[in-house]
Amino acid sequence: MAAGQPLQVMEVNLDGPRAGEVLVEIKATGICHTDEFTRSGADPEGLFPAILGHEGAGVVIEVGEGVTSLQPGDHVIPLYTPECRECEYCLNPKTNLCQKIRSTQGAGVMPDGTSRFSMLDGTPILHYMGCSTFANHTVLPEIALAKVRKDAPFDKICYIGCGVTTGIGAVINTAKVEIGSRAIVFGLGGIGLNVIQGLRLAGADQIVGVDLNDSKFDMATRFGMTDFVNPSKVSGDLVAHLVALTKGGADYTFDATGNVGVMRTALESAHKGWGESIIIGVAPSGAEISTRPFQLVTGRSWRGTAFGGARGRTDVPKIVDWYMQGKIEIDPMITHKLKLEDINKGFDLMHEGKSIRAVVEF
Amino acid sequence: MAAGQPLQVMEVNLDGPRAGEVLVEIKATGICHTDEFTRSGADPEGLFPAILGHEGAGVVIEVGEGVTSLQPGDHVIPLYTPECRECEYCLNPKTNLCQKIRSTQGAGVMPDGTSRFSMLDGTPILHYMGCSTFANHTVLPEIALAKVRKDAPFDKICYIGCGVTTGIGAVINTAKVEIGSRAIVFGLGGIGLNVIQGLRLAGADQIVGVDLNDSKFDMATRFGMTDFVNPSKVSGDLVAHLVALTKGGADYTFDATGNVGVMRTALESAHKGWGESIIIGVAPSGAEISTRPFQLVTGRSWRGTAFGGARGRTDVPKIVDWYMQGKIEIDPMITHKLKLEDINKGFDLMHEGKSIRAVVEF
Ligand SMILES: [Zn+2]
Ligand SMILES: [Zn+2]
Ligand SMILES: [Zn+2]
Ligand SMILES: [Zn+2]
Repeated sequence: MAAGQPLQVMEVNLDGPRAGEVLVEIKATGICHTDEFTRSGADPEGLFPAILGHEGAGVVIEVGEGVTSLQPGDHVIPLYTPECRECEYCLNPKTNLCQKIRSTQGAGVMPDGTSRFSMLDGTPILHYMGCSTFANHTVLPEIALAKVRKDAPFDKICYIGCGVTTGIGAVINTAKVEIGSRAIVFGLGGIGLNVIQGLRLAGADQIVGVDLNDSKFDMATRFGMTDFVNPSKVSGDLVAHLVALTKGGADYTFDATGNVGVMRTALESAHKGWGESIIIGVAPSGAEISTRPFQLVTGRSWRGTAFGGARGRTDVPKIVDWYMQGKIEIDPMITHKLKLEDINKGFDLMHEGKSIRAVVEF
Repeated sequence: MAAGQPLQVMEVNLDGPRAGEVLVEIKATGICHTDEFTRSGADPEGLFPAILGHEGAGVVIEVGEGVTSLQPGDHVIPLYTPECRECEYCLNPKTNLCQKIRSTQGAGVMPDGTSRFSMLDGTPILHYMGCSTFANHTVLPEIALAKVRKDAPFDKICYIGCGVTTGIGAVINTAKVEIGSRAIVFGLGGIGLNVIQGLRLAGADQIVGVDLNDSKFDMATRFGMTDFVNPSKVSGDLVAHLVALTKGGADYTFDATGNVGVMRTALESAHKGWGESIIIGVAPSGAEISTRPFQLVTGRSWRGTAFGGARGRTDVPKIVDWYMQGKIEIDPMITHKLKLEDINKGFDLMHEGKSIRAVVEF
């Protein structure tokens, strides 16, 4: 529970839900690079002690005063990007970045400025990304919960709370990829695989995957990749190679690496005149992207996306439906299942590159 | 006619139009920073000897074999960005960057690979931007001429061949600014003024002009500026000042300076969630733009525009109509009229910052 330390599994106090809040029993939670970014101490905005975790799925136990959209027994997915449907951002169709509870969420507390978690001695423990899914029970604001169908398995749909929606949403909400497009995806981890299946869903004709690790080939192909490029095996200029492969540059390129050098390559391998490059990955604090302005003046656009441009309460239930209908796949990406007491092993698997997603089941 | 030298006024030979080409008598031509960029030797793609000039208006004298859309007597505006209506770019509604004659135009010759201009001793002289409007007569490809109404004055509409269309088009074609938007324009020279009047035409609510020179205030206000900011008089952070002035950042920002530092300021003063920043200015060769990727991940877009995203044969005649209807103004921007023999004086006026646009009349 301190920066740079392994997670500690312990008993804590949890207060009940206050007005506008909901008590949720978490049934499953994924372990994500973002949790690790904070745990490691690299996140300049990380606060401790806190209960990490933001990719969960569970059941509503109790609702606070004034909660009308949820009731006990509902199945829900916590949303680190809430959807209040009444702030300036929610009312602007160009963005999903609801600002209603941004400052308190960033400070690790509920909208009233206090935490529901505390040590057995009474010391407060902070919430994390408004979710804190590494816990049997957690409290969230009503606006930060997507209500989903009850027949969907918790151990799969928990991943829709982050990577699945981020990757698929970057394609369909942010880029709005058209049928027949050519695309390049940089980085074939969990996010990259979900971008790839988003592109397949959107009807892209060519889906190029770029990764330094050849072992990514099989899984990426399974999700829809049509061409694989390992930059370490390209002689000469990577941008020129990718432009040739995509017959003039890709209509859409996606960075899922967080590496600012790769972000530049992604922009410059987009097609002159109309290519768009979307940044998904989170760069190290202080890192900067750069390019010659000529790249933009000749028609390329440089953009970014957070939570796949999705409005969680509206869009997440639809993605759960797509999973249940077989339009998208999640099962092969859940490579490991763990018990809560083994949660640090999930972080080890991620470090070793052995997991796409390790899920803790309660 | 050599890099870094003043222009020379001289007699030259001009061959008649070949297949697909048109002989035009130039009646008026503006003097633009782009001509100066090449004249000075700073343009790495500049070729000499050449006849400069790209902002013209004139009358068709003769058409070559196969020319069907123009006939002698038609009034025309030369287009440095042509519109063939059949290349991959012309057929894609997302771009105006027709590539049909790009390589020959860049090499200073007509599409058949030869020049129509030569010295009296026979030495070839190159075309410039496919236009070469600093000449009584010039030859252009049919696809590089916009046919315009005959009652429009040449000494005003010549400016539609470059700055007017670039500025207004950046607003209406590239940014597609909506009624009620807030915008910031960096640099209040000729392009900036045209961005401002484009914003007024598009119904923007707030039009902030930014320039280091207070003397720009009156003219910019005349074209629609609602707020003026001189960065040298802002204490503290310029981005923070602009964000506060626009109530959270501008919906659209435009760089008309060509300064990469200003381009960054323009991006970062766009609104979180949906702000778009459009680069219009041409940066010095080798200069790079940069920012933290977080600026894009939180919803800003970085884009660029060339010739205002306009398809010249289609859009330029409409802009001429708008001028004749009084929807846009050009007259106050034509600050100086010159004879061809005084053309170097026009470059001096530009250097001294005394002209918005100096026009040579033939
Ligand atoms: Zn995550
Ligand atoms: Zn909201
Ligand atoms: Zn010009
Ligand atoms: Zn074309």
